[in-house]
Amino acid sequence: MAELRRDPVVGRWVIVDTDYPHRPEDFDYEQNAPQSTSTCPFCYGSESMTPPEIEAIRDRETQRNSPGWQVRVIPNKFPALQVEGDLDRRGIGIYDVSNGIGAHEVLIETPYHGKDIPDLLNQEVEDFLRMYVRRCLDLKKDGRLKYIMVFRNYGSAAGASLEHPHTQIVALPMVPKNALEEIEGAKHFFEYRERCIFCDMIRQEMQDKERVIAENKYFLAFCPFVSRFPFETWIIPKKHSGHFCQITQDEMPELAVVLKDVISKMKKIFPNLSYNYIIHSSPVNSDSNVEFYHWHIEFMPKLTRVAGFEWGTGFYLDQTSPELAAQYLRSVKE
Amino acid sequence: MAELRRDPVVGRWVIVDTDYPHRPEDFDYEQNAPQSTSTCPFCYGSESMTPPEIEAIRDRETQRNSPGWQVRVIPNKFPALQVEGDLDRRGIGIYDVSNGIGAHEVLIETPYHGKDIPDLLNQEVEDFLRMYVRRCLDLKKDGRLKYIMVFRNYGSAAGASLEHPHTQIVALPMVPKNALEEIEGAKHFFEYRERCIFCDMIRQEMQDKERVIAENKYFLAFCPFVSRFPFETWIIPKKHSGHFCQITQDEMPELAVVLKDVISKMKKIFPNLSYNYIIHSSPVNSDSNVEFYHWHIEFMPKLTRVAGFEWGTGFYLDQTSPELAAQYLRSVKE
Repeated sequence: MAELRRDPVVGRWVIVDTDYPHRPEDFDYEQNAPQSTSTCPFCYGSESMTPPEIEAIRDRETQRNSPGWQVRVIPNKFPALQVEGDLDRRGIGIYDVSNGIGAHEVLIETPYHGKDIPDLLNQEVEDFLRMYVRRCLDLKKDGRLKYIMVFRNYGSAAGASLEHPHTQIVALPMVPKNALEEIEGAKHFFEYRERCIFCDMIRQEMQDKERVIAENKYFLAFCPFVSRFPFETWIIPKKHSGHFCQITQDEMPELAVVLKDVISKMKKIFPNLSYNYIIHSSPVNSDSNVEFYHWHIEFMPKLTRVAGFEWGTGFYLDQTSPELAAQYLRSVKE
Repeated sequence: MAELRRDPVVGRWVIVDTDYPHRPEDFDYEQNAPQSTSTCPFCYGSESMTPPEIEAIRDRETQRNSPGWQVRVIPNKFPALQVEGDLDRRGIGIYDVSNGIGAHEVLIETPYHGKDIPDLLNQEVEDFLRMYVRRCLDLKKDGRLKYIMVFRNYGSAAGASLEHPHTQIVALPMVPKNALEEIEGAKHFFEYRERCIFCDMIRQEMQDKERVIAENKYFLAFCPFVSRFPFETWIIPKKHSGHFCQITQDEMPELAVVLKDVISKMKKIFPNLSYNYIIHSSPVNSDSNVEFYHWHIEFMPKLTRVAGFEWGTGFYLDQTSPELAAQYLRSVKE
């Protein structure tokens, strides 16, 4: 019989199929097949095809918006939100409306069209992660912005509209619903037990070991007990920290290693995998949540397509238990 | 500039792209292309390939599990949940677990492999909708079950694993998170204003007319002001009713007409469209929510694939405003 598991943070129930578990070969997922590079606006030499760059890691003697860069940040050409203007909230009958104040940036992690994270040097991964932090620190200077989402869609099945690897950074004038729910859930736990629920989770996972995939000095990678998706993986700092942008100089290289390790393992089991990852962090310009919220990365491989149902109901069916998924992932050899 | 809109029921913010709205021809959606019928277990003559039927609408002189049926209900061959056993909830450290008590049924709406709802007679649509109600009424007799989800995934892009049209009915021993959120949101509004928020919404939509697609004596079809997906459409009874299974004999033919009308219009604009619809209703075996919750159908065409991000964040970007979508849908001629 299947097992129903309840997420301790947000209270979501997930069905874990323990009767007929899917093995990796049972997933008929959409293969990601990068094709053309000729007209890619994110490639070397195409810098003029994008809006002017916001920031870059580039050779000292090179010009902005020209080759010579390693990591490049640009505004989204079709931004969902714009920085200019005043925040204007109003009602239309029973509905609430606001204008789209905010920022929508694109971070190109490498000039090489075909290189995903496993193909980069550890140092290169570290460099673009540092740029994540720099952008967050810069964006949060705007006091109107309340939440910064850093997320990466890799492969068309994961919603990437351009195949050149890139990360998106969206800064919002409000805290999105799912973040709010996680924060509320963590707060509730904290009020009751005076402990961070994520710290408790880390302790239990490190003790159980069953769902752990990788670990180093500062980070733990594990398949969460209440995975919504098969092979879902979280990367979390072992030491309590509410804000991603408060990551230390010591922690950064370790994060690069564990992130690269997790994605490499995934792609060895699932060649040409599409995936998403999202950095879950506390709201910015507020320190009221940092005691009980714990930043982490949620990695979601795109192995299934049961989209609309889950979207509509919030009810998930995980065909491979996290225990089994972690076992497969641990067994991948370098 | 884009517009941010806040869902009055659950508080979700959605970005509506009013600057660069997508027209129907701008969506590069995955075409649904039904292929084989030879080994389909849901087709006429393949009745022995499925688990034994639970209920059917069939010719009087025909045998169960043989041809002669028009609508057929069977248990899911790989059920996520099973009716047998006792509900057993327990804790594993900080996690909560329950065994998978429940039911998972499949309702085959027509023996014809290639017929979707627009291809059926009104009477045939009405017949399978009546069967939805019959199954709900039967399942709710089991006092352990708290929520019944009726949903339809059409096309592989919408998560349908079998191409023969069918609806799934899942009965759960708990109320799923999204349903709970809607109920809580509606309750909050009711406590404050002593009115059903959905009734208010219906009133405003019928007045504004901008987002209305179709209307008949008992039902309204409209694109919700806070659509998460382009061309999202709701079908709602105009008269307050908490439970789908309390639909009246008079209302049923009208529901069949409006459901068929909405899907026909969608498929005329988007040929070979995949889609999901979900019936949102009050929890069963409890009458405490019926005053403020209002059952309805949410229809979600699969036009975009920005899956992982929305899943992870609960933050949606709607590329076609509901006003524009409704205008396109209204303009479809019979």
